[in-house]
Amino acid sequence: MRISQLSARTGVPVATIKFYLREGMLMPGEATSATQAVYDDRHVERVALIRALSDVAGLPLQKVKVVLGLIEHPDASLFDTLGQAVAALPPYLDDAEPPYPRARAVLAEIGQVYDERYAAVAQLERALEAVETAGIPMTSERLAVYAEHLRAIAAYDLAQMPGGEPESAVEYAVLGTALYEPVVAALRRLAHQDIAAGMLARRD
Amino acid sequence: MRISQLSARTGVPVATIKFYLREGMLMPGEATSATQAVYDDRHVERVALIRALSDVAGLPLQKVKVVLGLIEHPDASLFDTLGQAVAALPPYLDDAEPPYPRARAVLAEIGQVYDERYAAVAQLERALEAVETAGIPMTSERLAVYAEHLRAIAAYDLAQMPGGEPESAVEYAVLGTALYEPVVAALRRLAHQDIAAGMLARRD
Repeated sequence: MRISQLSARTGVPVATIKFYLREGMLMPGEATSATQAVYDDRHVERVALIRALSDVAGLPLQKVKVVLGLIEHPDASLFDTLGQAVAALPPYLDDAEPPYPRARAVLAEIGQVYDERYAAVAQLERALEAVETAGIPMTSERLAVYAEHLRAIAAYDLAQMPGGEPESAVEYAVLGTALYEPVVAALRRLAHQDIAAGMLARRD
Repeated sequence: MRISQLSARTGVPVATIKFYLREGMLMPGEATSATQAVYDDRHVERVALIRALSDVAGLPLQKVKVVLGLIEHPDASLFDTLGQAVAALPPYLDDAEPPYPRARAVLAEIGQVYDERYAAVAQLERALEAVETAGIPMTSERLAVYAEHLRAIAAYDLAQMPGGEPESAVEYAVLGTALYEPVVAALRRLAHQDIAAGMLARRD
């Protein structure tokens, strides 16, 4: 298809597609003349992935490029590639620095393997600091409940990760991590309302 | 204590405290002369709550006022007050309008009580639309896993809600909803890494 058809198929303006091509985020089409090229389904998929990462997951352009780079040139270790890809997701806590005492204590308590360089360790430290500041610090009991149930969700997520090409695994990990977080937050809020409706109907 | 001492205790500048007083977010101190007043621990707590809502939970000033208004003048029904308070939390989907077909289908499938006016219904619809757009739509199987485990977390949250004064319940509900969401997100990401470390160590 021509670039105008690629634009129609994806709903992305031609100027934006040209920008993706210039930035190396979209692979070139097959040249049919000095000024024209044709595109195929791989281009449609790549444009959709760029939009999902930027518009839906909220990644700035520079981070979208990092993720696409990892998809195209995965590290020798899939685990390291996944870690680098997930580290490209918000929130960006660029001023965070180890040690992360609250996160360390929590992770030791639930017995999880971790590395302080994981972006999520800084993220956990910041989140634990916030609940502490607000006067509702994490307790051992709450941690046990949260950790058990979030681990079950995470195990399900991992079990669904496509095998085969690292490309699919990286794409699934990045999109699934970023885009299922709002689903998790909304379902927790709605469960609160459902349970509270039952509890408080009796009390009011 | 004097306003300067209230500032020292809370770490909030005197000018900011005066602003909270003018805006009616902080109750007046007890006047000791035409130009001076004294403050007590209730003022320290209120300033801490305002900072937690604005700086930590990320509420804009106008929404902080809504929450404080609900704490001071709770509705006759605690359930309605909690609903209004949680609706003051981000994300603000002001352009969202019913019907919410994806959220309806999901909530019917898990058999939860809901009302389309709950802000979290619009939030769920938006989140489900995002995963669909990204090519990783919610499946019945994933929904069953997520709903079961998030309901267990929500039940724990509700069981910890302070009884007695509606003020404490509203404060707990708002802060607990907003500030534990980043904890949940970070713990899910860290569980992914822990489980993946075990799985992929064998594969790499």
